[in-house]
Amino acid sequence: MDLHDVTRALHVRNDTKIVMFVADGLGGLPQEPGGPTELEAARTPNLNELARQGVQGLSIPVAPGISPGSGPGHLGLFGYDPLKNVIGRGALEATGIGLEMLDKDVAIRCNFCTLDQQGNILDRRAGRIPTEESALLAKRLREINVPGVEIFVEPVKEHRFVVVFRGDDLGGEVEDTDPQMTGVPPRAPRALNPASQRTADIASQFLAQARDLLADQTRANFHTMRGFAVKPALAPYEEVYGLRAAAIAVYPMYKGLARLVGMHIVGNAQTLEQQMEVLEQAWNDYDFFFLHFKYTDSTGEDGDFTGKVQRIEEFDASVPRVTDLNPDVLIITGDHSTPSYLKSHSWHPVPTLLVSDRCRTDSCESFSETEGSRGGLGQFEAKHLMTLALANAGRLEKYGA
Amino acid sequence: MDLHDVTRALHVRNDTKIVMFVADGLGGLPQEPGGPTELEAARTPNLNELARQGVQGLSIPVAPGISPGSGPGHLGLFGYDPLKNVIGRGALEATGIGLEMLDKDVAIRCNFCTLDQQGNILDRRAGRIPTEESALLAKRLREINVPGVEIFVEPVKEHRFVVVFRGDDLGGEVEDTDPQMTGVPPRAPRALNPASQRTADIASQFLAQARDLLADQTRANFHTMRGFAVKPALAPYEEVYGLRAAAIAVYPMYKGLARLVGMHIVGNAQTLEQQMEVLEQAWNDYDFFFLHFKYTDSTGEDGDFTGKVQRIEEFDASVPRVTDLNPDVLIITGDHSTPSYLKSHSWHPVPTLLVSDRCRTDSCESFSETEGSRGGLGQFEAKHLMTLALANAGRLEKYGA
Repeated sequence: MDLHDVTRALHVRNDTKIVMFVADGLGGLPQEPGGPTELEAARTPNLNELARQGVQGLSIPVAPGISPGSGPGHLGLFGYDPLKNVIGRGALEATGIGLEMLDKDVAIRCNFCTLDQQGNILDRRAGRIPTEESALLAKRLREINVPGVEIFVEPVKEHRFVVVFRGDDLGGEVEDTDPQMTGVPPRAPRALNPASQRTADIASQFLAQARDLLADQTRANFHTMRGFAVKPALAPYEEVYGLRAAAIAVYPMYKGLARLVGMHIVGNAQTLEQQMEVLEQAWNDYDFFFLHFKYTDSTGEDGDFTGKVQRIEEFDASVPRVTDLNPDVLIITGDHSTPSYLKSHSWHPVPTLLVSDRCRTDSCESFSETEGSRGGLGQFEAKHLMTLALANAGRLEKYGA
Repeated sequence: MDLHDVTRALHVRNDTKIVMFVADGLGGLPQEPGGPTELEAARTPNLNELARQGVQGLSIPVAPGISPGSGPGHLGLFGYDPLKNVIGRGALEATGIGLEMLDKDVAIRCNFCTLDQQGNILDRRAGRIPTEESALLAKRLREINVPGVEIFVEPVKEHRFVVVFRGDDLGGEVEDTDPQMTGVPPRAPRALNPASQRTADIASQFLAQARDLLADQTRANFHTMRGFAVKPALAPYEEVYGLRAAAIAVYPMYKGLARLVGMHIVGNAQTLEQQMEVLEQAWNDYDFFFLHFKYTDSTGEDGDFTGKVQRIEEFDASVPRVTDLNPDVLIITGDHSTPSYLKSHSWHPVPTLLVSDRCRTDSCESFSETEGSRGGLGQFEAKHLMTLALANAGRLEKYGA
């Protein structure tokens, strides 16, 4: 039995409310040996109060030493083993720009490229053509028509765009057409199994028409296709946990990831303040709320220690809006660490806090990496967090007699 | 995806150096309640300084409560799940005496035995015949000739020796011929699958010739064959980690284990001092160095608390030779515990230390079982250590986008 077999069998419904408040890239590192991390440097009276009430630990997003992207990081928090549930690159790209995939979709990442007169690739990124120019060309490709399939084309940034094929019998196992080098022609899309032959055929027709539509271009006169992917098969929250779940996020990527596990995307908040308003308004309609705060990650990625400290303080200041609603279980965590010192996602375990009247409180006095390492939750894989949430909400029956 | 699928996909190469310095059987226990362990009783100023700089924890060699042999203990440290990767007994015995196995080899542990006139086993160990006598008889068996296969016979200790068959189509699934009791004849070698039939046939011919060659003996007039095993299929370090790896060990067993995962055996050091010389000389030629120190285990096995303390101090004194080379990642650990109190390998988690400028330092002030239990690495399975090493060396890309 895997964890979802267990929660599927044992979950019960009640009127408790669970909030998972995620500060993206929360964990950090000292700027210099012996110094504080961003979280330790920040003034966080509300989080510290929760640390005294609840139980703290360090969550390992995927496995020790593995730095996750946003996809695996959030899958772990949502309780889906990120080593067993892999979101294909095309599906993640589509998700990231807010394209909602259906079960019969195949999503593909595309790059505009430059071909020479012999049809060999001169530039795999079409000179990193600016977004405005690229977007117009991507939209031009919406003219492409392949019988029996619905096609969506969406610009992304610079030379990148996404194509989605929607139709029956479309497998996702098709080889990239990008040869990863210049001086050779792009490859033909080749199916890696019989179930994906139709997808490869449609891609060939798409590429032929695209070549004509782009023939007048000097830079972006063709494109490659990479990361063919069907929608990942993730059992929905309602089924595995019995939770009506709401996601309150600002960025398309996180809305998309939440949608993939069956959460409802609620509101259209653009700020943390507005997210709290949406939370208050939706409070009676859902059992579980995923709240996502982006800027602790983006400041970390920028190497902006002070900026990250300020964003953590902003996050802390919003906590009373959540606690005023009296959730039965409140979880504060991050999907991974993003230390300003490294300017990137990292593998370091993430401070994680669970507050409920059924948790076994520890002696932690504040919320931090250092306190977390001696907290009552210990170090644990993030995928166990949802089971802990259900248990603390009285939503899981005994396993076995 | 398993851990090696991930590291195989994500590793990058750079010019960092990683050193894994293993004190065999490092972990210990107090001699009496309330007393220090061997590591805590030892004066270890260099290790304590590293403990202040790095991050410490306790590694679980296989799983809680499992006391590993040298094989599983080192497989864990090398990042190979010791419950999924099993080295057959014959292969481990061959490895332990320094026989280098090829992919088309089958190794077999053999015991001289005594048969009575009816051909029933009188003594399964031929009266524990002394090594000098046994070695001569084992070498006599080198006369055996079976067409189509190359045969190696190597003495071990007392009644034990190793036979290796080298040839095509030799499966390793052959039943032991030792019936594990006296008063009955040895069994014929029986193939457990069709792919091993040829091995069983060759073993039968080998045994028939051995019976003739040993006919003049009173004690060791025959032998049994046990633990038939092919070379274990372990993906090499270069492939799974992108590391050019060197092993600097004194004992054949540890050289053999390192060779099984694709490390190069460097130098021919007989002392720790000489191992350090080899390390210095090989420094520019490899990315990863496995340094093995045996005597913390052997003193533990002898129940010699004071001896183990001294060996730990000897180990500590050698640390500056390593740190003077400025490795980017330095790991100090053991393959298991060998408490003098138990005079044997044990299951107790092993103090483990990782030093790099990307680690998240904890507040540990010294290197010990007690400090390790509150360290920032927590308690973790040893198989995760290599992933942590790669991450801290900047040699792993992000998992997922």
